[in-house]
Amino acid sequence: MRAPAFTLTAGPVAASPRVLAALGSQIEYDYDPIFLERFRATQRKVAQIFRTEGDVVLMQGEAVLGLEAAALGIVTPATTCLNLVSGVYSKWFGERLRRLGATVVEHEVPFNSAVDPADVEALLVAHPQVSVVAVVHCETPSGTLNPIREIGPLARAHGAMVICDVVSSLGGSDVRVDEWGLDFCVSGPQKCLASTPGLSLVAVSDRAWEAMHANPAAPRRSYLSLLDWQTAWEQEGRFPYTPSVTDVLGLEAACDEVLEEGLEAVIARHENAARAARAGLRAGGVEPWAASEEVAASCVTSITVPDGIDEAELRMLVRNRYGVVISGAQGELVGKVVRIGHMGIASTSLYPLVGVSAVVQALGDLGAAVDVGAASATTLAALAERASA
Amino acid sequence: MRAPAFTLTAGPVAASPRVLAALGSQIEYDYDPIFLERFRATQRKVAQIFRTEGDVVLMQGEAVLGLEAAALGIVTPATTCLNLVSGVYSKWFGERLRRLGATVVEHEVPFNSAVDPADVEALLVAHPQVSVVAVVHCETPSGTLNPIREIGPLARAHGAMVICDVVSSLGGSDVRVDEWGLDFCVSGPQKCLASTPGLSLVAVSDRAWEAMHANPAAPRRSYLSLLDWQTAWEQEGRFPYTPSVTDVLGLEAACDEVLEEGLEAVIARHENAARAARAGLRAGGVEPWAASEEVAASCVTSITVPDGIDEAELRMLVRNRYGVVISGAQGELVGKVVRIGHMGIASTSLYPLVGVSAVVQALGDLGAAVDVGAASATTLAALAERASA
Amino acid sequence: MRAPAFTLTAGPVAASPRVLAALGSQIEYDYDPIFLERFRATQRKVAQIFRTEGDVVLMQGEAVLGLEAAALGIVTPATTCLNLVSGVYSKWFGERLRRLGATVVEHEVPFNSAVDPADVEALLVAHPQVSVVAVVHCETPSGTLNPIREIGPLARAHGAMVICDVVSSLGGSDVRVDEWGLDFCVSGPQKCLASTPGLSLVAVSDRAWEAMHANPAAPRRSYLSLLDWQTAWEQEGRFPYTPSVTDVLGLEAACDEVLEEGLEAVIARHENAARAARAGLRAGGVEPWAASEEVAASCVTSITVPDGIDEAELRMLVRNRYGVVISGAQGELVGKVVRIGHMGIASTSLYPLVGVSAVVQALGDLGAAVDVGAASATTLAALAERASA
Amino acid sequence: MRAPAFTLTAGPVAASPRVLAALGSQIEYDYDPIFLERFRATQRKVAQIFRTEGDVVLMQGEAVLGLEAAALGIVTPATTCLNLVSGVYSKWFGERLRRLGATVVEHEVPFNSAVDPADVEALLVAHPQVSVVAVVHCETPSGTLNPIREIGPLARAHGAMVICDVVSSLGGSDVRVDEWGLDFCVSGPQKCLASTPGLSLVAVSDRAWEAMHANPAAPRRSYLSLLDWQTAWEQEGRFPYTPSVTDVLGLEAACDEVLEEGLEAVIARHENAARAARAGLRAGGVEPWAASEEVAASCVTSITVPDGIDEAELRMLVRNRYGVVISGAQGELVGKVVRIGHMGIASTSLYPLVGVSAVVQALGDLGAAVDVGAASATTLAALAERASA
Repeated sequence: MRAPAFTLTAGPVAASPRVLAALGSQIEYDYDPIFLERFRATQRKVAQIFRTEGDVVLMQGEAVLGLEAAALGIVTPATTCLNLVSGVYSKWFGERLRRLGATVVEHEVPFNSAVDPADVEALLVAHPQVSVVAVVHCETPSGTLNPIREIGPLARAHGAMVICDVVSSLGGSDVRVDEWGLDFCVSGPQKCLASTPGLSLVAVSDRAWEAMHANPAAPRRSYLSLLDWQTAWEQEGRFPYTPSVTDVLGLEAACDEVLEEGLEAVIARHENAARAARAGLRAGGVEPWAASEEVAASCVTSITVPDGIDEAELRMLVRNRYGVVISGAQGELVGKVVRIGHMGIASTSLYPLVGVSAVVQALGDLGAAVDVGAASATTLAALAERASA
Repeated sequence: MRAPAFTLTAGPVAASPRVLAALGSQIEYDYDPIFLERFRATQRKVAQIFRTEGDVVLMQGEAVLGLEAAALGIVTPATTCLNLVSGVYSKWFGERLRRLGATVVEHEVPFNSAVDPADVEALLVAHPQVSVVAVVHCETPSGTLNPIREIGPLARAHGAMVICDVVSSLGGSDVRVDEWGLDFCVSGPQKCLASTPGLSLVAVSDRAWEAMHANPAAPRRSYLSLLDWQTAWEQEGRFPYTPSVTDVLGLEAACDEVLEEGLEAVIARHENAARAARAGLRAGGVEPWAASEEVAASCVTSITVPDGIDEAELRMLVRNRYGVVISGAQGELVGKVVRIGHMGIASTSLYPLVGVSAVVQALGDLGAAVDVGAASATTLAALAERASA
Repeated sequence: MRAPAFTLTAGPVAASPRVLAALGSQIEYDYDPIFLERFRATQRKVAQIFRTEGDVVLMQGEAVLGLEAAALGIVTPATTCLNLVSGVYSKWFGERLRRLGATVVEHEVPFNSAVDPADVEALLVAHPQVSVVAVVHCETPSGTLNPIREIGPLARAHGAMVICDVVSSLGGSDVRVDEWGLDFCVSGPQKCLASTPGLSLVAVSDRAWEAMHANPAAPRRSYLSLLDWQTAWEQEGRFPYTPSVTDVLGLEAACDEVLEEGLEAVIARHENAARAARAGLRAGGVEPWAASEEVAASCVTSITVPDGIDEAELRMLVRNRYGVVISGAQGELVGKVVRIGHMGIASTSLYPLVGVSAVVQALGDLGAAVDVGAASATTLAALAERASA
Repeated sequence: MRAPAFTLTAGPVAASPRVLAALGSQIEYDYDPIFLERFRATQRKVAQIFRTEGDVVLMQGEAVLGLEAAALGIVTPATTCLNLVSGVYSKWFGERLRRLGATVVEHEVPFNSAVDPADVEALLVAHPQVSVVAVVHCETPSGTLNPIREIGPLARAHGAMVICDVVSSLGGSDVRVDEWGLDFCVSGPQKCLASTPGLSLVAVSDRAWEAMHANPAAPRRSYLSLLDWQTAWEQEGRFPYTPSVTDVLGLEAACDEVLEEGLEAVIARHENAARAARAGLRAGGVEPWAASEEVAASCVTSITVPDGIDEAELRMLVRNRYGVVISGAQGELVGKVVRIGHMGIASTSLYPLVGVSAVVQALGDLGAAVDVGAASATTLAALAERASA
């Protein structure tokens, strides 16, 4: 089987030449002074992207490691959590919270929409015992964004900690950890930063550290321990276990690229790519899954699979006939959507045209009523407008 | 600060050009058919190196993840464990077992020696309630090997499960999972396989799977869950979370190199490199830490730091004056030993000469009574003998 | 200035990951047995692509080196050459022949057309003294192909040697050195083979070797000497000068990719990409430069720049607004055409769509009357037809 | 056959990771603005290493291309040349001059020694018609250096042009084009700069340009033409033919490394490595070929093969038993010497120890009376002295 020419997925995504060069560079000894300094510098660069002056822990496993570590750090059977559910990932996180024995107040909205901050406020008032609010910024399966800019301050005003999943949004949408009062903010390098999946990037507020220290059940001497990183690395300068050297090298290169281009420019690039893709899809007769432009994500566009089309057949056609890999769905959305990613390189140049054209053409190949020309021309026009701005 | 010319450490170690090329190759989408097949193939290749027909789980985090997952999978407060301690790592593992609430029978030998199988047999007889035996094959800080070839069958005969840490020995010493009855055997790619540290390679016996299924406290829906990998990946063909694509590509390339050269040849290469290094050191007036040739490891040589020499100063001199990075010690051995690694590339050609010469010369620079010429000539002669065999 | 996302040029072109990995692999000593064997193997692989059983010389400089060496090898002031001119490159080659003092019979056709074999036959009859026929297979500036399949045998029947420039066509169009009787056939790796420009690939017939041996003025002990390569390398196994190791590694990888995919499949891929691009351009209201489908090249499409459009402005817009680098013109065609390459990767997947869309959209941006939707839809439909065939 | 672990040759040599990353980076279109600027920047960086304010031409072929181009540019049958012969390369250059029809006054000294400037002065006085002096700075086969610092000014005082071969010395020994009045100074990237062999680096003085313009036979519209580069590239901003993009990227990275470390530090590093190697060889009972420390080169050490030892057998033993590739001899020195290179990486850290130890050990294996311990210890002591200075 031939490798695809284009990887336009919801992550992992294609890395830039500079990131690939970093990943392919010689593996350094973790205690060599050069790597020690590089690890510290990478933490600082990630913090800049998180827009935080606080600590950033680089846990050495995929982003769910950081999310699990955050939950274990502060959630016990005595905790009441408000879990905001607008998609598959937040639903799963609720299960995790319940497995920890917590009382979970769950607020669910349709999976193509976003949580309304007014509802959050009302819920916090109605449930004064809530001490943890869990929210997913970008529901990657749905391609939708929640207004964490408003939810964060509401939770803090209420005295609750916020565990925020920004795995796919960091670098593609505005994320302001300090300004918005997000206590645990967890991301990964394999989305808009466009490096490897092997790390959890965890911004931890001072309040969050205090809460973990106050929790005797918070993991220690464990792969799931954030406190170990504070004790061993931040205080004693040794790693709690061997870090994933190569992943760190790749992450640093990815951060350098983002910071050199400028974080705001990078975010605007992702937003424009997604906007052009949605416009092109609609012009071609294909509907984005997100209920409105307002809730649509910038890192990925979920597309409603038309009736009568098999989504797996659609994806294989897009891949094998046109050389473009896109993502399928997850959880309850399986069969309902396919997804074009706009992460990293995929948000540059004419990549959105490639994704939109391939999907619309393949839908036409499978018998759907589409207009390929309109899809392509509209996508291009939207990209042209951006580029000439 | 200038990068060192030679990385002769106890891991992470320098990777081969082929492994680096794999690490620097484009990041693949984890659900692309090509990556799915590659992941499966990599599991099979690791199984070959473990010499097992059973399952191999590739957990997506450094080797301690696999060790913690194994312990959590079968150890509860009702468990009695026999922990065989011959060094820093096994001592730490005992703490982990105790934190899980287990009753731990600990048998400790001096950290420059190995466990005697006769003692293991006596202990198993004396403690019939022991259901888990924990043993570290190579105590990397000490540069010593335990006789797991004999300990494994003893434990099985007794009806106990074996959790075996072969992190640094796999690929450098003989490891036979099935033949020796090792139920959990945990390794990592960053040692003798010479790839990245970001993965746990876990061989799991059928008995081990059964024991975890029988344990209601075994982790599920957790980063620490082996059962998740069985359910999601082995049974449903989906990853429990996004795998570390790049680390998997590197691991596959590393396995290919080992299997193409031949596992026995690779092991012999490591053994010969270590033997030459020890001979050279002794000839130069420097003592390996291991009490005898019999217990000395093939992946790393720990060297006793002579009285009056500061080990950190020694390592910095070796690095900054001669361009060679070696490893310091860990735990109780800090200050007592430095270590030259023989893992991967470092076991080929004249790398042992480079390591031995640099350390002996630097010891001389610091005032120790050494014979650099004898050290070099003896190392070379030993390497020559091997190469011409 | 930001690097372009897409390089869709007439060469040098983007290389595949495999070729790039070869180029980035460690430089080998040219007399190491491994490199010696690799060099020989690469010669044989290039010969397969040339479809010749005869010798292939890998001269260590860009393709014009091989063309100059061929001319110097057999052309003297006593020679009468028939130079077939259908574009810029053949015109330049005529100048080269005249500088050597040769009598040059020049047959020129319009630069958007091809030479008619019937005219060649008539000219050979009219000029019986012609002993060398020079022809360019693909006039890269024009994007046109000459019928060397017929011209070669005509020349041979007449007793004349053929110097054939297949620099940009090899790998993208059918080239059959032995079957068509091409005495010197010169190509380069930087076109359809998609590696570096630093080598001349020269197929030399037995007749050609004899003619050079018979020519006392043929270069010897010179960078321009083909005979040196025969004497030193073929007969004595030593290089006449240090070969460009890295370029050879890249070329071998490029040949491996072509031969593994299958030469005929690779050629069909280039032909289909170019056909789709031409169809799309025409549908969008833009004209290919080539006068007809029959003479149009498969490796590159030259596009007539509409009146009132500045070609340099057009290319800079395509690059800076859309991230796509295309080629400008050369010689007499400067200002009249721009060019989209279909070489190597650019002939796969949706790359032709990217090129066509970018150029048509940019022409529209500059005020030309174009139909972007029709251009995109037609290109896609043509690519779909191919892919589903 | 297994690839060697160490390439310690007289060129091509192993490149650094940074140079390899540049070589493996995507091939850029030669007329993309980014490459055009990069090409110009590379010229300027090479000029810094040549210590010239004058022009540097990057010819796109191995260094002999530049040497041939220089000779063709100013030497005609009317020219009288003084050719200073101290080794194989200068002897070959004399043949080249004679083939051009020049009158050649040849001054030959033993191939393990250097030319005496006093003799040059006497010859110039005795042959007032000499208008070109040809000299090789480092005779790579011999591992010897000529005093071009004095020969250059002598020639200029006499009114003669100097063609100087600094192929292997540039970056490893002091070369000052402007200060020493060297009119044509030719080098290559594959020696002390440690990149690919595919380029000629040619420093051309104003006097040299004038002389070529004044010579109607100087090549034009030829691969051998320096004037083409001046006309096309320097004056019109276009390449006379497609440049070797990848080689240029590698060269720029190599120059960056040299200039960032500091040219004087780089030269000192090469000198020290060679001095340590010679000391070690002598201590081990093996003789450098160079007659004295004063004439010994810093980029390569030629070693006299002891009586009764077959040099090819020696090299194959060094390679196959110890994993170290060294160079054989050329021309008249074949069978008499083998060579350890100290170029680039090979001049850092303990590489000289590796080379010396491997050769001395292998000589011992073949029955020569050597002292491996003394060789190693002395090399190390010399390196230690340098590093601690």
